[in-house]
Amino acid sequence: MNSELTREYINELRSIIEAKDDKAALLKMEDLHPADIAGIYENLSIDEAKYLYLLLDPEKASDVLVELEEDDREKFLDVLPPEVIASQFIHHMDSDDAADVIGDLAEEKKQEVLLHIDDVEQAGDIVDLLSYDENSAGGLMAKEMIRVNENWGVATCVREMRKQAKDLDEIYYIYVVNDENLLLGILSLKALLLASASTKVRDIFDADIRSVRTHTPSEEVAQIMEKYDLIVLPVTDSIGRLVGRITIDDVVDVIRDEAERDYQLASGITTDVETTDSPARLSRARLPWLIIGLLGGIIVAAVISRFEEDIKINPEMAFFIPLIGAMAGNVGIQSSAIIVQGIASNSLGLESTYRKLFKELLVALMNGIILAGLLFLFNYFVNHKLALTFTVSSALFVVIIFAALFGTMIPLLLHKMKFDPALATGPFITTMNDIMGLMIYFLTGRILYTVFV
Amino acid sequence: MNSELTREYINELRSIIEAKDDKAALLKMEDLHPADIAGIYENLSIDEAKYLYLLLDPEKASDVLVELEEDDREKFLDVLPPEVIASQFIHHMDSDDAADVIGDLAEEKKQEVLLHIDDVEQAGDIVDLLSYDENSAGGLMAKEMIRVNENWGVATCVREMRKQAKDLDEIYYIYVVNDENLLLGILSLKALLLASASTKVRDIFDADIRSVRTHTPSEEVAQIMEKYDLIVLPVTDSIGRLVGRITIDDVVDVIRDEAERDYQLASGITTDVETTDSPARLSRARLPWLIIGLLGGIIVAAVISRFEEDIKINPEMAFFIPLIGAMAGNVGIQSSAIIVQGIASNSLGLESTYRKLFKELLVALMNGIILAGLLFLFNYFVNHKLALTFTVSSALFVVIIFAALFGTMIPLLLHKMKFDPALATGPFITTMNDIMGLMIYFLTGRILYTVFV
Repeated sequence: MNSELTREYINELRSIIEAKDDKAALLKMEDLHPADIAGIYENLSIDEAKYLYLLLDPEKASDVLVELEEDDREKFLDVLPPEVIASQFIHHMDSDDAADVIGDLAEEKKQEVLLHIDDVEQAGDIVDLLSYDENSAGGLMAKEMIRVNENWGVATCVREMRKQAKDLDEIYYIYVVNDENLLLGILSLKALLLASASTKVRDIFDADIRSVRTHTPSEEVAQIMEKYDLIVLPVTDSIGRLVGRITIDDVVDVIRDEAERDYQLASGITTDVETTDSPARLSRARLPWLIIGLLGGIIVAAVISRFEEDIKINPEMAFFIPLIGAMAGNVGIQSSAIIVQGIASNSLGLESTYRKLFKELLVALMNGIILAGLLFLFNYFVNHKLALTFTVSSALFVVIIFAALFGTMIPLLLHKMKFDPALATGPFITTMNDIMGLMIYFLTGRILYTVFV
Repeated sequence: MNSELTREYINELRSIIEAKDDKAALLKMEDLHPADIAGIYENLSIDEAKYLYLLLDPEKASDVLVELEEDDREKFLDVLPPEVIASQFIHHMDSDDAADVIGDLAEEKKQEVLLHIDDVEQAGDIVDLLSYDENSAGGLMAKEMIRVNENWGVATCVREMRKQAKDLDEIYYIYVVNDENLLLGILSLKALLLASASTKVRDIFDADIRSVRTHTPSEEVAQIMEKYDLIVLPVTDSIGRLVGRITIDDVVDVIRDEAERDYQLASGITTDVETTDSPARLSRARLPWLIIGLLGGIIVAAVISRFEEDIKINPEMAFFIPLIGAMAGNVGIQSSAIIVQGIASNSLGLESTYRKLFKELLVALMNGIILAGLLFLFNYFVNHKLALTFTVSSALFVVIIFAALFGTMIPLLLHKMKFDPALATGPFITTMNDIMGLMIYFLTGRILYTVFV
């Protein structure tokens, strides 16, 4: 029932396409979900995919279009005339999917497609949705839903629902509004099912519900739906009139994307890339952070060059440069990752910034003592050089403290200044901490070597 | 409607608790969702929280218990006798939540609580659920659902549903089974709503549905629900009998946890920690990777010590140690992050391992040429030292290639050997690449300095 895409399957399909065997190709795709067909397309050439695409009936083809990755979708839409896009594809889509697809088109083509939509109500819904920021509740919501008036009886309600339900794939909730279309609450299908025919909607709906405004940011929508385990969330305009609803499947994508973006930023990758992207795209996504790393390395080299004489006298100082740099980087990343994740999942708690810094300081003190101690024992018993032993261990201790404080403060600062705190993780914090850590190291060395030699 | 927890609110609540003003406390929590109350508890002392907890009616108290973080929940349950847990809390819970709560108890207490559950059917459901692996479909599913027989008419169906619906918070789908309880398909509420009373279930249900087996891993459940935009997913035993269903809200937690775990592993943090955890816990979670980093640093020091003579003659070689180390680490993390994410989101595509390595090689070649070129220009025009210029740039180029290949290969290897590929990111790959990178650097230096000097 759950089809796993295999290379054998793709190869079979390829030979069918080459033979232009329409019937065999349709048979092969017959039982597949649109998401599976989209997955297949991503493993075919554009010409092969186009051949398959034109075989599908328009409704299934629209579903596949919605499931395609943005890049692949653009390639398809580029070669299709606006009237075909409007009548064959948009016509079969829900308003949110239609707005997403049209929103990705070039401005001119967008206007043409909109003019070719026959259903004026649908076109109006799409234009409305296009006006919202992509990353807000308005950008996530769809217009299709069932709304009933609080004054209706259950029988009227069911009759009206039957009328409205034709547009909908699925019904999870029914929204209750008053004569001014102000959102009052929800009517669950369970309540409707259990009610007698003479009951009024007013008496059985649930007024204790959550809703968001059109301008609520996507991340907040995701947090609310996650926290309260919601399947659908109604969206109102600024005076509380019901304008749309967001379903959990769209929010799952927001959660996944957000987590992936933080992870990618922390790994020094700028734009959203996947293994299947082209080498040039993969290269471009990584270069910016690498160039920052390179600049950082050049600055560090300039810092160390100030200590050239120290290195000439005590070349063993150079041996521990990577250790100090790596530990500064690791500690900084650990501290920042915890803060960035806390911000992302809204679980930072109510502790003040000072309290957080104080706690990080405690953690850093504990880890610093243990790690500097271990290194001290190693150098004392293996290297037998007292000046080096003291220098490396005390520098490591100080570096760990500073790295932890920097790692905590920088993402909090960025967040306060309305930047994305995830920027602080990865190459940025490691480079900063590299520079700071090695300055501390060589300064400690200069002082301690004069003490011990 | 969406309450934001503030420090003022907590402080007000604290003074109410101190004054032991039951009425004011209840009033303050009256309109709050259980998830909000759980959030409040996490910001109070255990005694303060206990006071509030005992004021709530049992049903709300159970909901709050389910929403609490695992650690906080354990603290509460530790102080409560088994018969209270069974009659006051478990009694009001859905089978999946009840199994989660009981599953976290110590073995002895678990048995006692189970014996104190009056409802034999509920106790049986919980025992069944406890037998499944936490990270499988069986561990995620709940037993409560509406099932109808294919041979029933719509009227019988609605009557039976009314009976079964009493146990359920919400109905999204109705499952259709045959006389042997084999899952046949789903009946949507929409279909039921639009059908006439004389229709048979057999004629209106949808047989084209997805389901999983009890032993399907959680990650796969999440991938299926995400890919096919499912709200509920039925679970069958190995011969296809319907045994439970999984709702999307439980899967959202799986997705969030998975993404957070990968990110934490990549940041060198071992167990699941949050900013609100104690300093000792935070310290313990970070030490393992830091000790690995320390050992790596000691090995690197030993490697560099082999080149002590080279450093004495050309101390400027030491200046670029951090640059080489940092670039090796950054490139390695970038490459491994893309692979780890591809594995996690099942989007690696069907390219072979060789093809992936070849692509990474291309990306690394591009980035290597650009970065080594930039560094060459800098050193050539600023440092004016030919031997150093050639050494650092050519070493950087080779290091980038190796780091990219290692970063790609190691997570793929770990995945093939059934280890978690996320282990390969963060401190592990940076340490490996540090050692490898600096060996290449100093060997290149030894060769090129003899050529140019």
